[in-house]
Amino acid sequence: MKAINVGLCGVGTVGGGTATVLKRNGEEIARRAGRPIVVTMAANRDLDRARELVGEGVALTDNAMDVVNNPDIDIVVELIGGTTIAKDLVLAAIENGKHVVTANKKLIAEYGNEIFAKAQEKGVIVAFEAAVAGGIPVIKALREGLTANKIEWVAGIINGTSNFILTEMRDKGSAFADVLAEAQHLGYAEADPTFDIEGHDAAHKLTIMSAIAFGIPVQFDKAYLEGISKLEAADIKYAAELGYRIKLLGMTRRRPNGIELRVSPTLIPASRLIANVDGVMNSVLVKGDAVGATMYYGPGAGAEPTASSVIADLVDITRLHTADPEHRVPHLAFQPTAMANLPILPITEVETCYYLRLTVKDLPGVLADVTTILAEGQISVDAMLQKPAGDSAEIVIVTHTAVEKNVNAAIAKIELLQSTIGKVVKLRLEHLNG
Amino acid sequence: MKAINVGLCGVGTVGGGTATVLKRNGEEIARRAGRPIVVTMAANRDLDRARELVGEGVALTDNAMDVVNNPDIDIVVELIGGTTIAKDLVLAAIENGKHVVTANKKLIAEYGNEIFAKAQEKGVIVAFEAAVAGGIPVIKALREGLTANKIEWVAGIINGTSNFILTEMRDKGSAFADVLAEAQHLGYAEADPTFDIEGHDAAHKLTIMSAIAFGIPVQFDKAYLEGISKLEAADIKYAAELGYRIKLLGMTRRRPNGIELRVSPTLIPASRLIANVDGVMNSVLVKGDAVGATMYYGPGAGAEPTASSVIADLVDITRLHTADPEHRVPHLAFQPTAMANLPILPITEVETCYYLRLTVKDLPGVLADVTTILAEGQISVDAMLQKPAGDSAEIVIVTHTAVEKNVNAAIAKIELLQSTIGKVVKLRLEHLNG
Repeated sequence: MKAINVGLCGVGTVGGGTATVLKRNGEEIARRAGRPIVVTMAANRDLDRARELVGEGVALTDNAMDVVNNPDIDIVVELIGGTTIAKDLVLAAIENGKHVVTANKKLIAEYGNEIFAKAQEKGVIVAFEAAVAGGIPVIKALREGLTANKIEWVAGIINGTSNFILTEMRDKGSAFADVLAEAQHLGYAEADPTFDIEGHDAAHKLTIMSAIAFGIPVQFDKAYLEGISKLEAADIKYAAELGYRIKLLGMTRRRPNGIELRVSPTLIPASRLIANVDGVMNSVLVKGDAVGATMYYGPGAGAEPTASSVIADLVDITRLHTADPEHRVPHLAFQPTAMANLPILPITEVETCYYLRLTVKDLPGVLADVTTILAEGQISVDAMLQKPAGDSAEIVIVTHTAVEKNVNAAIAKIELLQSTIGKVVKLRLEHLNG
Repeated sequence: MKAINVGLCGVGTVGGGTATVLKRNGEEIARRAGRPIVVTMAANRDLDRARELVGEGVALTDNAMDVVNNPDIDIVVELIGGTTIAKDLVLAAIENGKHVVTANKKLIAEYGNEIFAKAQEKGVIVAFEAAVAGGIPVIKALREGLTANKIEWVAGIINGTSNFILTEMRDKGSAFADVLAEAQHLGYAEADPTFDIEGHDAAHKLTIMSAIAFGIPVQFDKAYLEGISKLEAADIKYAAELGYRIKLLGMTRRRPNGIELRVSPTLIPASRLIANVDGVMNSVLVKGDAVGATMYYGPGAGAEPTASSVIADLVDITRLHTADPEHRVPHLAFQPTAMANLPILPITEVETCYYLRLTVKDLPGVLADVTTILAEGQISVDAMLQKPAGDSAEIVIVTHTAVEKNVNAAIAKIELLQSTIGKVVKLRLEHLNG
């Protein structure tokens, strides 16, 4: 049977991994796909590097548009990253009637609506398993495995750099800056780590999962981001004392009036399986109305893990693309639902539980003042610790479900109290049990 | 667009769940599948019960063959269970050119080869996501999400009843018999619990996963089964002391000379995420050569969780079945590989780590005798505990990787020592890290 011809745009870590695995496991993959899948062309700025990684028998070019315009190429794999060249070549590939596989979370999160609309119009498939949670087939789970469900929420630990840092901070009691330096030294964090530690990368992936789970347009610009760079070792310690782990959690939840879409350091009960996902591993927990909670765990990055997802998409497209064009729905494309009009809620409208830490002068009536302010804001207390700290005291409060704007208002009042020293630390808390 | 007509055979817990979810989430499901999926006919011995569960608008019959022979039915859902009527109706459905969705692990594990061969011949799809790990889309992960990989092993906690019992034994330090009674009282165990606690159910599911993972025929008759009914509270306690949890683990592993296929109570390091899967939840951990380890977790049973998987299959078939028959590979059918000739290894050829517990008279030289026997059997010791027990002593040994037949031979020699009292307890141990 005629092979499917694949063109790689960008031959770096993932491109090299893809070429390697396609060759090593070629026989298995061909049988599962029903026909061989071969890389026949690759584009990279450094042609020598490309040749090293893809081996012989592959036409090389330093111009990605050569791949996109080559009539013999069936599927274009975009592994360049970013939203300039990558966007142009993806749209051009679709225009040329070619299917697209990408690992580019930024591209899909920011331009997905336009890309999917074009794909739907041209009847081609755009697949992006590799863009979210590396090798874990979570997009497939959301879009196919859980297709019987109304998804209620999706929670994810989807950035390995920040998860590694938080794991080390907890295991060693170290400060953020020290662990970041260690992570950079080990290659788990970039020289400029902003994208990972401030939640951008996680928010891109969360945005994509939210669109698939709820059938809404991708709306990365509406996502709330809060990274881990301000997290103090003291909060990790108190969280542990109260029975929680702190993770950089992406959370998207369906509410009657809209969709929550947020990434922030979040306390999770230590008894939850997902709270124990450590190091550079990723995990996504999904709540569906029929199945309940299912969880997916594995490596979120790396050459061969990410290649594993790229190739899973290549196989899916190969299987699907012979479908009769009159009846085929490009199922790997975005399918907007009646929910498409539900807004992404601003962070002030989010309802969840909160962890608060404040430092107060150790005076009579302080606790009464604080708890009165909380009660006035419809915020009820789940747990509390008070510890002496010299002449002061540290008070740690875990609340029941409250609306964020009420919590913000209460914090503002607490900070105005004579007895309060400095600012109140606020972290979100998710029980993830329903 | 014309609806896909589904016929349910067997309207019990899962049939009712399937009908309920198809109705409740019908709009979402139709959009994702590209066309509506409706139950138009159902067969059940108790017609009143069936009417209660499926509601109006569904033709009822007490003869499952009516469903199979109805020319308007596109997909037959087999939820009767067992291997007599169920087998006949599945084969007849295939003969009639109908696709089949089943939750019947026993049927697929024991007769899968014949069923898949027939399906391949007739060009129809037989899907069985609901037969393994309830609502967790693990068959989809193995067959599609991980399709780029050579699978190295699959380990599963795939029987909720036994996992519930083991969790309680550990949490409460109780004896097996007491916890079994409690489980039966709570409805987690049957009046005759043999199928669940002796490993049959887990072995059925493992056999199916093994076939999909390695592309070998289903060979349930070759699976090794060892249940939990002989497990003592003492072993759970010692395991915990040494840093392990005991789970009824299904393990299938690729070896150069064959495939391991076994279910037995197994020690797993407490630090592994899968060791912390408790109660009635299920989990499957897969090692692939490209992606590494990925894990899937969720409810292994229940009306709507299982229905979630049944419906995922219905949607997949609906999407796939419009594919041009000349090119379509019935991808949900079994695809034998070149490995089809690798034998299932007898348990004596298995290589893994072991936990041994023996009671000895507290005499000089006992430990030397025991360790000498182990050394002679090429069995090296990883960890050891010795504790006084009256005039005797209990010795607990954790070994490095050893061949089972050597361990059995060593145990036989140890049991012949004058100093040994009674039998040696032997449990397998898996590190699950590569």
